[in-house]
Amino acid sequence: MLRDGALQGKTIIVTGGGTGLGKSITRYLLTLGANVTICSRRQAVIDETAQELTTELAAVEGVGRILAVPCDVRNPQEIENVLAQTVETFGRVDGLLNNSAGNFISPTERLSYKAFDTIVDIVLRGTYYFTLAVGKYWIENKISGTVLNISTTYATTGSGYVVPSAVAKGGALIMTKSLAAEWGKYGIRVNAIAPGPFPTKGAWDRLFPEPLASLMDDPGSRIPLNRVGDHGELANLAAYLLSDFSGYITGESITIDGGEVLMAGEFSHLRDVTDEQWDEVSKSIKQANRASKS
Amino acid sequence: MLRDGALQGKTIIVTGGGTGLGKSITRYLLTLGANVTICSRRQAVIDETAQELTTELAAVEGVGRILAVPCDVRNPQEIENVLAQTVETFGRVDGLLNNSAGNFISPTERLSYKAFDTIVDIVLRGTYYFTLAVGKYWIENKISGTVLNISTTYATTGSGYVVPSAVAKGGALIMTKSLAAEWGKYGIRVNAIAPGPFPTKGAWDRLFPEPLASLMDDPGSRIPLNRVGDHGELANLAAYLLSDFSGYITGESITIDGGEVLMAGEFSHLRDVTDEQWDEVSKSIKQANRASKS
Amino acid sequence: MLRDGALQGKTIIVTGGGTGLGKSITRYLLTLGANVTICSRRQAVIDETAQELTTELAAVEGVGRILAVPCDVRNPQEIENVLAQTVETFGRVDGLLNNSAGNFISPTERLSYKAFDTIVDIVLRGTYYFTLAVGKYWIENKISGTVLNISTTYATTGSGYVVPSAVAKGGALIMTKSLAAEWGKYGIRVNAIAPGPFPTKGAWDRLFPEPLASLMDDPGSRIPLNRVGDHGELANLAAYLLSDFSGYITGESITIDGGEVLMAGEFSHLRDVTDEQWDEVSKSIKQANRASKS
Amino acid sequence: MLRDGALQGKTIIVTGGGTGLGKSITRYLLTLGANVTICSRRQAVIDETAQELTTELAAVEGVGRILAVPCDVRNPQEIENVLAQTVETFGRVDGLLNNSAGNFISPTERLSYKAFDTIVDIVLRGTYYFTLAVGKYWIENKISGTVLNISTTYATTGSGYVVPSAVAKGGALIMTKSLAAEWGKYGIRVNAIAPGPFPTKGAWDRLFPEPLASLMDDPGSRIPLNRVGDHGELANLAAYLLSDFSGYITGESITIDGGEVLMAGEFSHLRDVTDEQWDEVSKSIKQANRASKS
Repeated sequence: MLRDGALQGKTIIVTGGGTGLGKSITRYLLTLGANVTICSRRQAVIDETAQELTTELAAVEGVGRILAVPCDVRNPQEIENVLAQTVETFGRVDGLLNNSAGNFISPTERLSYKAFDTIVDIVLRGTYYFTLAVGKYWIENKISGTVLNISTTYATTGSGYVVPSAVAKGGALIMTKSLAAEWGKYGIRVNAIAPGPFPTKGAWDRLFPEPLASLMDDPGSRIPLNRVGDHGELANLAAYLLSDFSGYITGESITIDGGEVLMAGEFSHLRDVTDEQWDEVSKSIKQANRASKS
Repeated sequence: MLRDGALQGKTIIVTGGGTGLGKSITRYLLTLGANVTICSRRQAVIDETAQELTTELAAVEGVGRILAVPCDVRNPQEIENVLAQTVETFGRVDGLLNNSAGNFISPTERLSYKAFDTIVDIVLRGTYYFTLAVGKYWIENKISGTVLNISTTYATTGSGYVVPSAVAKGGALIMTKSLAAEWGKYGIRVNAIAPGPFPTKGAWDRLFPEPLASLMDDPGSRIPLNRVGDHGELANLAAYLLSDFSGYITGESITIDGGEVLMAGEFSHLRDVTDEQWDEVSKSIKQANRASKS
Repeated sequence: MLRDGALQGKTIIVTGGGTGLGKSITRYLLTLGANVTICSRRQAVIDETAQELTTELAAVEGVGRILAVPCDVRNPQEIENVLAQTVETFGRVDGLLNNSAGNFISPTERLSYKAFDTIVDIVLRGTYYFTLAVGKYWIENKISGTVLNISTTYATTGSGYVVPSAVAKGGALIMTKSLAAEWGKYGIRVNAIAPGPFPTKGAWDRLFPEPLASLMDDPGSRIPLNRVGDHGELANLAAYLLSDFSGYITGESITIDGGEVLMAGEFSHLRDVTDEQWDEVSKSIKQANRASKS
Repeated sequence: MLRDGALQGKTIIVTGGGTGLGKSITRYLLTLGANVTICSRRQAVIDETAQELTTELAAVEGVGRILAVPCDVRNPQEIENVLAQTVETFGRVDGLLNNSAGNFISPTERLSYKAFDTIVDIVLRGTYYFTLAVGKYWIENKISGTVLNISTTYATTGSGYVVPSAVAKGGALIMTKSLAAEWGKYGIRVNAIAPGPFPTKGAWDRLFPEPLASLMDDPGSRIPLNRVGDHGELANLAAYLLSDFSGYITGESITIDGGEVLMAGEFSHLRDVTDEQWDEVSKSIKQANRASKS
């Protein structure tokens, strides 16, 4: 979508960039000319992704370089190591994409205190640790950097059965707004994306094991636009928000979900009523009105 | 809920107070000692309600008086007449409950411009006309009055198939916040209630003619608390917001819907998964984790 | 920002496209290859803009064509004429940008019923009339069109002193969500942009006559990013939302305001505290903690 | 506000109930007949409060009993001890008021990872630990309990300079909505209150040491209703939400702030314009209109 070289000269850190949506976004950032550091707890995974993307994009003109650094986002020392290695390799850092996540689908009363903590620590603590580290670096070095957080629609609506993740994403969303308000004076922008269903083979099977998978409706059926999202659509939005073209947007969370969250509307589920049934409804109403006037 | 006489000495105008929820709230306001003017286009309806409530509450100690004045809320002269008659009868006005409404359940593309206007004019124009008239009276007479608007959850979420009503209620909700911000300095408070399903025999049959009625789920089934609301529960909240006990609440819209709007949460519909199925899910996840570690 | 020709083959109607932000967006849409119909009550203004942009962009490769059709958006016949002429000239319509507006800055109690109506009719009625007309055309012709509404941050927060505009924009925002939910099944997307301060010489002088202009702070001072917006930044976002690149975004309102709305945060105004004062605060807190422990 | 004995037979746990707003609410709950367990890390403080309230309310008819149990809300064992002792003393638990909090007012870049954690652990972890413990107890014992969380307006808007607190309160707010959606089927309700400024001597001096106190405006001046809140007003709302009278409200956060958060509205700060200045504005606009027509 963006012009060639739109991110030339930028260096962006992508947490959890080895798989799924993080990997798709990384691919597009590289294509647009950005250097990208991907990090994750599993060194083998990010090494393989780095190798794969380097090979795949070798022929793209102006493509950026990729660096893989292992990191548990709950550990400040490891975060600072990612930052130091990125600066050493690419000279500086311009953007941070907080994308690492974890989730349990479960009734909340079945969770232990520890299980709840595990998700909150990865998703929320990891996000504010990384943002704090990079923010301090930017303020000290007078860099107008940009943070982009991968959020979710239930960071606003809430949702049962994923409560630790909802709590953590809810907290991270308010961090987005709060730091945008506070750090705007340093030229730092902080935004979020709330994606709907963008399936990734593998991740979805793990998140929705049987019998959940069979129990869940076809996601397309609950979505106004009648389809799930395409990774490229999310990458377009992420690249825009990480680029200078969005320079006046800050503190914003943009939902990209085919309208899924709108099905909350009290009568939106009437989409299943057929044209013939609406004809009948219309007739009933006319009759009732005629009766009430006579 | 509130102490006896909690609204003693207050006079409140209730638009659309002749039927349904407006009538239920009127009954409770009278019981708490308020004088109430009800108004509606149909004189016979409000006269009958005034008669009925007077008889019904005759034995209640400290009960307020009721006045019925016909009014089309789209007509400023008729609104000013309601105000003048209320002041003449009860001495002053302290509260306004904007409750008049209209609705069509229909695919939007089947509506004419005029049908769309009809709903917007009753719901939105009626609300700002009445609020403007009463607000000017309060400011001129240095009365710290209170407005309460009957909103809906789709004034925030939006909803298909009731679009003119959604548009109008959405506009009225922003009026609530805007005037609360502006008129706070006059001691005027402006709030709203967003009710979920509080069925009224008659109104619901008209709103959901066959085959809609049969097509719609049992509303209880889509509501976290598993039931529809009781008119008394709404009346409690309305009386609280119209009383001085809520004196520090302004610009707020309070949802009372048994949690209906929360079903928007991406995974909240998993409430239909049984305990046995969750056991199975849990087993699948443990197996997957074991596999990924080995 | 977008690649050359990103809107090639698209035809977009821009209401109020003759001046201000509407004109800036029109310029960018043409540059990207879209054909644009601009409309406004004042024929001379849109004719002049059409002439000016045609001349200005003559050298741009792949530039779109522009058509000017007079229209009062409160009049369905005139709307349908814009639609008919656009289809006749360009073959079809793919996008609608509802951008026409009006506003009074005034204490609400100084407004007449009629003044209130004037703003609501232009902003809200005009928006739903035009959307209804174009939506019916799309559904009938099986076109997956896109609506973009120019909203404002006070469509969500409310605001004193611009209440008719707030009411109208609030209603239009809920229309955005409602129709996105309902018309998604036809492939129609409906989104909004909520811009902060993007000054246009002329428009701002009219909106903020003396003594308001002198009374108002420098808008930059109340904005986290310390500056007003640039028309090009808004045009980037509008073009993205009108293009197929945003194909999975619907029912969304995107704020682009330099963080202005975030200043609502209870303590965000502490941005005026200096570094030296924070040092002092920090010292006070340490002393208090020491005292409370001893 | 509520009728005498409105909470007779209920037992409610109030975290942080020894001081400030927690203490004020505890006083009112006791007055309405509820038994209350207050808990806090500082045993001496809650013992003193228990003693003081017992003495103060001795003459109130039908007053509830009070129990003080020390507890660090970050420690599950201590939480379970509070629960066990409450059940032992009062027979059961019906309500939980999550009120414990902590805050630092500081530029975020001055915070260490550990300082950030401290606030998040008390406010967010403490809230979900306590709610999880009590929720499991309710589900196991088939009790339709109620949780009420003390939130803040910046849990929605975000705010600079209190970022750890904002993050934690933001997360807790989404927990409120999520668990309301999920646990509604057990009859459990979960709500929140977002208070504006309700000063408590002592707490405010600690939160706003010099020179912050002098730097901050008179809070009344930034609030539409021109005053700070009264503890009794908050206690009214809390008692209502903890009582069965609010039985159809769940997943809701009610703001009680005198309209403070509404000042976000883009033009709401024009409240400082005088009547004479508005006259002048009005004259300017009329002249401009006349000029543009001629």
